[in-house]
Amino acid sequence: MDAERLEKLFDQVRADKLTISAAVAQLRHLPFEDLGFAKIDHHRALRQGFPEVILGQGKQAKDIAAIVRAMRRRKSNILVTRLDAEKATALKRLRTGLKFHAAAHAATWVQKTLRVRGKGTILVVCAGTSDIPVAEEAVLTATMMGNHVEKLFDVGVAGIHRLLENRLRLDSAAVLIVVAGMEGALPSVVAGLIDKPVIAVPTSVGYGASFNGLSALLGMLNSCAAGVTVVNIDNGFGAGFAASLINRV
Amino acid sequence: MDAERLEKLFDQVRADKLTISAAVAQLRHLPFEDLGFAKIDHHRALRQGFPEVILGQGKQAKDIAAIVRAMRRRKSNILVTRLDAEKATALKRLRTGLKFHAAAHAATWVQKTLRVRGKGTILVVCAGTSDIPVAEEAVLTATMMGNHVEKLFDVGVAGIHRLLENRLRLDSAAVLIVVAGMEGALPSVVAGLIDKPVIAVPTSVGYGASFNGLSALLGMLNSCAAGVTVVNIDNGFGAGFAASLINRV
Amino acid sequence: MDAERLEKLFDQVRADKLTISAAVAQLRHLPFEDLGFAKIDHHRALRQGFPEVILGQGKQAKDIAAIVRAMRRRKSNILVTRLDAEKATALKRLRTGLKFHAAAHAATWVQKTLRVRGKGTILVVCAGTSDIPVAEEAVLTATMMGNHVEKLFDVGVAGIHRLLENRLRLDSAAVLIVVAGMEGALPSVVAGLIDKPVIAVPTSVGYGASFNGLSALLGMLNSCAAGVTVVNIDNGFGAGFAASLINRV
Amino acid sequence: MDAERLEKLFDQVRADKLTISAAVAQLRHLPFEDLGFAKIDHHRALRQGFPEVILGQGKQAKDIAAIVRAMRRRKSNILVTRLDAEKATALKRLRTGLKFHAAAHAATWVQKTLRVRGKGTILVVCAGTSDIPVAEEAVLTATMMGNHVEKLFDVGVAGIHRLLENRLRLDSAAVLIVVAGMEGALPSVVAGLIDKPVIAVPTSVGYGASFNGLSALLGMLNSCAAGVTVVNIDNGFGAGFAASLINRV
Amino acid sequence: MDAERLEKLFDQVRADKLTISAAVAQLRHLPFEDLGFAKIDHHRALRQGFPEVILGQGKQAKDIAAIVRAMRRRKSNILVTRLDAEKATALKRLRTGLKFHAAAHAATWVQKTLRVRGKGTILVVCAGTSDIPVAEEAVLTATMMGNHVEKLFDVGVAGIHRLLENRLRLDSAAVLIVVAGMEGALPSVVAGLIDKPVIAVPTSVGYGASFNGLSALLGMLNSCAAGVTVVNIDNGFGAGFAASLINRV
Amino acid sequence: MDAERLEKLFDQVRADKLTISAAVAQLRHLPFEDLGFAKIDHHRALRQGFPEVILGQGKQAKDIAAIVRAMRRRKSNILVTRLDAEKATALKRLRTGLKFHAAAHAATWVQKTLRVRGKGTILVVCAGTSDIPVAEEAVLTATMMGNHVEKLFDVGVAGIHRLLENRLRLDSAAVLIVVAGMEGALPSVVAGLIDKPVIAVPTSVGYGASFNGLSALLGMLNSCAAGVTVVNIDNGFGAGFAASLINRV
Amino acid sequence: MDAERLEKLFDQVRADKLTISAAVAQLRHLPFEDLGFAKIDHHRALRQGFPEVILGQGKQAKDIAAIVRAMRRRKSNILVTRLDAEKATALKRLRTGLKFHAAAHAATWVQKTLRVRGKGTILVVCAGTSDIPVAEEAVLTATMMGNHVEKLFDVGVAGIHRLLENRLRLDSAAVLIVVAGMEGALPSVVAGLIDKPVIAVPTSVGYGASFNGLSALLGMLNSCAAGVTVVNIDNGFGAGFAASLINRV
Amino acid sequence: MDAERLEKLFDQVRADKLTISAAVAQLRHLPFEDLGFAKIDHHRALRQGFPEVILGQGKQAKDIAAIVRAMRRRKSNILVTRLDAEKATALKRLRTGLKFHAAAHAATWVQKTLRVRGKGTILVVCAGTSDIPVAEEAVLTATMMGNHVEKLFDVGVAGIHRLLENRLRLDSAAVLIVVAGMEGALPSVVAGLIDKPVIAVPTSVGYGASFNGLSALLGMLNSCAAGVTVVNIDNGFGAGFAASLINRV
Repeated sequence: MDAERLEKLFDQVRADKLTISAAVAQLRHLPFEDLGFAKIDHHRALRQGFPEVILGQGKQAKDIAAIVRAMRRRKSNILVTRLDAEKATALKRLRTGLKFHAAAHAATWVQKTLRVRGKGTILVVCAGTSDIPVAEEAVLTATMMGNHVEKLFDVGVAGIHRLLENRLRLDSAAVLIVVAGMEGALPSVVAGLIDKPVIAVPTSVGYGASFNGLSALLGMLNSCAAGVTVVNIDNGFGAGFAASLINRV
Repeated sequence: MDAERLEKLFDQVRADKLTISAAVAQLRHLPFEDLGFAKIDHHRALRQGFPEVILGQGKQAKDIAAIVRAMRRRKSNILVTRLDAEKATALKRLRTGLKFHAAAHAATWVQKTLRVRGKGTILVVCAGTSDIPVAEEAVLTATMMGNHVEKLFDVGVAGIHRLLENRLRLDSAAVLIVVAGMEGALPSVVAGLIDKPVIAVPTSVGYGASFNGLSALLGMLNSCAAGVTVVNIDNGFGAGFAASLINRV
Repeated sequence: MDAERLEKLFDQVRADKLTISAAVAQLRHLPFEDLGFAKIDHHRALRQGFPEVILGQGKQAKDIAAIVRAMRRRKSNILVTRLDAEKATALKRLRTGLKFHAAAHAATWVQKTLRVRGKGTILVVCAGTSDIPVAEEAVLTATMMGNHVEKLFDVGVAGIHRLLENRLRLDSAAVLIVVAGMEGALPSVVAGLIDKPVIAVPTSVGYGASFNGLSALLGMLNSCAAGVTVVNIDNGFGAGFAASLINRV
Repeated sequence: MDAERLEKLFDQVRADKLTISAAVAQLRHLPFEDLGFAKIDHHRALRQGFPEVILGQGKQAKDIAAIVRAMRRRKSNILVTRLDAEKATALKRLRTGLKFHAAAHAATWVQKTLRVRGKGTILVVCAGTSDIPVAEEAVLTATMMGNHVEKLFDVGVAGIHRLLENRLRLDSAAVLIVVAGMEGALPSVVAGLIDKPVIAVPTSVGYGASFNGLSALLGMLNSCAAGVTVVNIDNGFGAGFAASLINRV
Repeated sequence: MDAERLEKLFDQVRADKLTISAAVAQLRHLPFEDLGFAKIDHHRALRQGFPEVILGQGKQAKDIAAIVRAMRRRKSNILVTRLDAEKATALKRLRTGLKFHAAAHAATWVQKTLRVRGKGTILVVCAGTSDIPVAEEAVLTATMMGNHVEKLFDVGVAGIHRLLENRLRLDSAAVLIVVAGMEGALPSVVAGLIDKPVIAVPTSVGYGASFNGLSALLGMLNSCAAGVTVVNIDNGFGAGFAASLINRV
Repeated sequence: MDAERLEKLFDQVRADKLTISAAVAQLRHLPFEDLGFAKIDHHRALRQGFPEVILGQGKQAKDIAAIVRAMRRRKSNILVTRLDAEKATALKRLRTGLKFHAAAHAATWVQKTLRVRGKGTILVVCAGTSDIPVAEEAVLTATMMGNHVEKLFDVGVAGIHRLLENRLRLDSAAVLIVVAGMEGALPSVVAGLIDKPVIAVPTSVGYGASFNGLSALLGMLNSCAAGVTVVNIDNGFGAGFAASLINRV
Repeated sequence: MDAERLEKLFDQVRADKLTISAAVAQLRHLPFEDLGFAKIDHHRALRQGFPEVILGQGKQAKDIAAIVRAMRRRKSNILVTRLDAEKATALKRLRTGLKFHAAAHAATWVQKTLRVRGKGTILVVCAGTSDIPVAEEAVLTATMMGNHVEKLFDVGVAGIHRLLENRLRLDSAAVLIVVAGMEGALPSVVAGLIDKPVIAVPTSVGYGASFNGLSALLGMLNSCAAGVTVVNIDNGFGAGFAASLINRV
Repeated sequence: MDAERLEKLFDQVRADKLTISAAVAQLRHLPFEDLGFAKIDHHRALRQGFPEVILGQGKQAKDIAAIVRAMRRRKSNILVTRLDAEKATALKRLRTGLKFHAAAHAATWVQKTLRVRGKGTILVVCAGTSDIPVAEEAVLTATMMGNHVEKLFDVGVAGIHRLLENRLRLDSAAVLIVVAGMEGALPSVVAGLIDKPVIAVPTSVGYGASFNGLSALLGMLNSCAAGVTVVNIDNGFGAGFAASLINRV
């Protein structure tokens, strides 16, 4: 429809029925949505080698399988996040070809070899063993987005020496993702030791006055160390994604 | 710049250097922001006879005066909201020509005669005398936007007969704005009596567990009467604006 | 009792034992509740063609079935909301004649042909696929209340072009219902594009700091765009009802 | 032990080994807990005809049964509150002799005939059908504590006429318990109509921004009608107990 | 209008154009608001000897003075609550004849001698010296409403012996008002000692995690002692009013 | 009165008018408050060398002066907390003999030489310079209660080396008070380094999402290091008091 | 690696290729993490006779069993906390040799005879029977850490006499742990009766406005009795641990 | 002391009184804090050309002046943040040589010429004019840290076209800081348009249910667009600092 309209405009110009300036003026006064060609390129992410992402939470296994099958035709890699054990089992039965990553509660389908495009290493640090699933989600996301990723787990602030013994590893990272529940203090300590961007991920680990991660979230937002930015509670994917963008700056 | 680009495109078509379908394709692949002509008409509101609105809160008197002077040149009416007593006094000294409405903590400048375009009457109801400033802000806003507005004040639920005695007035309104603080119960009662849209405005009137209007806000959001929608605490302007839009449907 | 009292009054008037003005005065001074005849017409809604509504949540399938059977005798249409899958299955076994709408978690029984009484189109917009059940509840409600309803789904603000490509549809609606979870930003963007009433519906979609819809709710209440009013979290029914009232103003 | 000590003291006085004033002084300087006789009479409640109360919530059926059997020996009446369906079924199998009250989620064992000691009628009012379990808990509690209790259910503020039609019943009560969820507005309206103590009971009925009864609780605490006092969310027992105390003043 | 309508009805009856039962039926079907005579008697409170109450908070001294002058003509007693020091000073200059009660932040004007109508003693208990202003507001309110009122101040739970030494006074009261800030524990202890209605008043006394009285409010709502009901934070007036109603049951 | 009653009882025993067992039984059935001698020794604290404490907040300078003068007669030391600059100035003019401690917002009057009774050193640690007033309140309180107190200030977790350089000082303390605002992470780190009781004091230092100390409070309550206990926001006095009790165990 | 580096340094010194002061300077300028020998002794706790602790919550039975088996080789005692019934059953099947403590939802493995090292008695007090699991967790923790522990259960503030009758037991404790849900008032009363450290443990016992223990937590933080410190909601382990540290000061 | 110890160790090695491996072992078992040389280099930030930063909030003008004077000797640049108008005026009188930036509520002292070390442009975007002070704080911080910074102000989501017209500027930035109050929706829209790191800064702009920036904060944390990270409310400095770190990755 819009194509016709445009063609007619050009036609009139070519036939000298319309002056060029009149044609430009007409275009200028059309609201862009009438033109139909003001498409914003939403495939930019894909061209950069990012995977397509499916949020598993809130979707049924059969729906996820259908989406995966559709996506596979587009030749891009796929990351499915937030798959609980039950849904993963159901998905396995559906033979989608997905590879499951139990630790990260996620699944992937890698069609195009992952190329490392991030400049430096993304180091994912976590405070306690209960924070590991969120940390692994960050690791997997950053890996799928083309980064060299390393892990430094179980280095909470109550045993500060374990963190300090790994200062060289902290120093050699380009971007850090720091995952912690409870009081959420680890990002402050880490950011105080280095001069690199730190993305803090509060987790819902804890009980009582942790209020499902609120305590860690507030702690991280109020970090006394500059350079810390924060994502939503348990949002390992978001942290991995943001770190990937930072690692390409 | 963009004009040049477009002219060149038409030139090429006219000169048969470019087929029409190729020209259309080129246009289609330009991101709209490069065209520079995808202007969204933000003067639509003004053409409908709405006033220009200045939020007085957070601005200094001299800045408000400057904005008013600039706006007066555009030939539209002006509404300045959230003027506390002190700021109003300062503004008066600056001789902007504004008319002050103490009850509504607002000021206006009417250049074009207000035409009533709203179909029915907007009735502004409030629960207690302390809610009146917010109610008056709604009244003034709706008036400035071209509506016939009536008031029914001090008819809180603790003296339900005062409200019931005015049922005819409730019935004859096209849209109702109901303003209340404390428990915020009035909109539920009103909406239960009529079949018209009710916009509920919680106020920060109260103390202790009213938590600056949170109590009234939650009460209104949980209204057991269907047909009630809610705006922000103390947002008389927003209610008046929304009611005006509704009154033109 | 009250009837006797009234009859006696008329008796006295007919027998000229009481002047008419004295009788009127007596009536006037009786508190209305003693009269027993101050019936408020609560069937007004039904006469306007609205369906009778049953909130399925918190009721057992057999109770809903019983209510539906009783209502069918009244010759009005019926809308049952908030039926989870399990309850819907139980209800189906009870053969009530209800038609189930899985997407809206609802059921209907249409006895009287739905007549469109709303003046314009109600457009229901939603941000993500997870918001669809709430959006569908709004669609179904507004349809059952006699409106022409259209849908525009999955146009969240993170891909703003999808929304902008549909500006003509936004413009042609009389009333808009905008459903969104997470940050709840969509109503602000929509209300900034048009001059029509926008009813915002926050959903409990999200996790972590979304706090079961609180984040979206606060976002919508603080909308920077005038003309937005808000209903309770996940309250698609309330939005559909309010939109229907607005569409008849 | 303490008895010995006291006897020795009296012995010394009788034997003139200790002057009376010295004995009194000794008593005066003993911390009361050493005396062992400073028993506060905790059977007072029972002597007034109150039942013994067992909170069923958080106890297993077999534990409740054991407590009931022990209590039955004490010859007092028994009230077991907060029995969900499953626990009630389990208890029935244990043949405790309890009588179950499904509507109130409670059970009773009446050994001593209930004597009405409260002076007036306690009227229990509730807003919606979902509030009935809490209201019935209040009814049963007040009945078990020796009061004449009446009910007025499903008279929410969105259909104010149903309440107004029952003004005579409101007027004739000595104490009122008003139960409501959602916006919790009913107690304000009731208290505005009468001059009797009103105990407001918020319920967790609602969804979204009702935040499990917080909305109703705040609404009731901020009641614009004087004379309203409030108990915890869903605390029908507490309201029935307090009303019983008031009814004996 | 309504009068005409009624007169016409009586006219028809007198002229035998309408049977009495038909006339009664017609009245019965008129919505009460059309009659215009459904006045609810809102002077009931005054007839019982209650004072008229002005909430000083949020009103300017000159407005309070104007209201007081108007009320004095009605021959009722007056209670003005929530007068801060500054407003009280301004009011004194306006020579309204009010008597000021600094401790209660209130003022009164007693025209009709206060008659004690409450049956028993209302005992106002408070936890700390900082709670006294709220306690005094309760004392003054209950006194103005015709009760014998006693005080028991500064008996907080951290020094439980001071409270226990006064058990006789607790026992001899008919109704108790218990005022406390911080953790709000006093009402639970008091209610555990007696079998009388206890109205708990949380105060905003405290700092940090007292959150302006929220801590005390929650503590009182969760009282482990049955028979406690609660009013809003700092609402000494409300407690005094409710206690007065209870004392007349 | 009670004395008379007791004397009479002994009299009867001595005169053999009452058996001893009957007398004991009589005593046993008297409620303790009737005896009047069940005094709990509230001077115990003073005998242990603790000062008398006056909370300055919420009291006027003249009232504080009056209390101080009265206390000086009792021969005990005095600690006045929470004196803002203005109140301190007013107090100085009243010549109470108090010594002012500006850093701690407090004043003292030491009449009896402070004797160190605490066994070990109490170390008061704080995170930032803004936390110092609260830390100094703790220092002064613990000093006035007879402890050897040391300070380690400005050792926040963002510069963890400053803390680590002082590990010997941490190790040599018997009890630690750790004061921090913002994310409140310092107590976790400190408690992870030592095996001593740590009392954490959240401060209201910070802005935005620190919510006046809530962030630090939650962080401390959720400390991942065992051995941490917490007091109210800004409650340096409470921490100093608790540490003093611990230091005497 | 670091060992080599150090050996080389000593080698050079021994071979007189490096002066001692130069060697010291070199060491001084190495960041400690490069040395690799800056091990902080994290076995200190174990040397003091503390058990190793496994948080059962969030771990699967098989993982707990694996950890226990690994730990048994280290010759230390073991405490497993937060085992729900189901997980305990699963663990029993895995034959780990653990001893289960149903009341405390915990399990232990005692290899080295527990030696009492704490100086005094730790008294664990709780308010209601529902608080017992948390109290038992504190009892077990303190016992496993080498303390003499006593219990005083079901002495809530609503029946204050039960507490007062046990004042001698309160007085004879060195440290007190006070466990309470609902309004959390018990620690204030206890701390007012004694001069010993009181650790308050809020529990999630309650319903409605107890908000899962928030009410008790706030109450305890706002305790009007000095000397109270608080741990997280339901954190019996943390209280037992902190009390153990205090009991060794 | 530690030097002596080390020297002695080397001495023993040189004198062959200690084998090298024994000496290494001894060093290895010393806790690092005994060595005294484990200094962490906290001057790293300064060496990178970052300014020294003084938080003006909570400090008096004279204290700030003193700190500035001390810092000037260290030859580094200085940034003073959060200076309100009054404090700025006081500081000006103290002639510190600071340059004031009214829009950013900040001051600077640039001694060393600012060198641009950041790779790309940092674009600071803000939603409304009231958000400008926070945005300017971010601009100034990033500039002082050696970045090329650009501004795009007043492009809120209610007028989405203003943002879209500037898409080229968004695309050409390396890092974006997006500042918004009210519903905080702007970062989601921006992050949806580009593939660069977005740091979201919520502001306390708004009223009522904005709860001092909580609404914007929650909105940003729940952003539906991946790649968004968040800092504390009004924390323009923190955003500028983090963006600077990112811009050097």
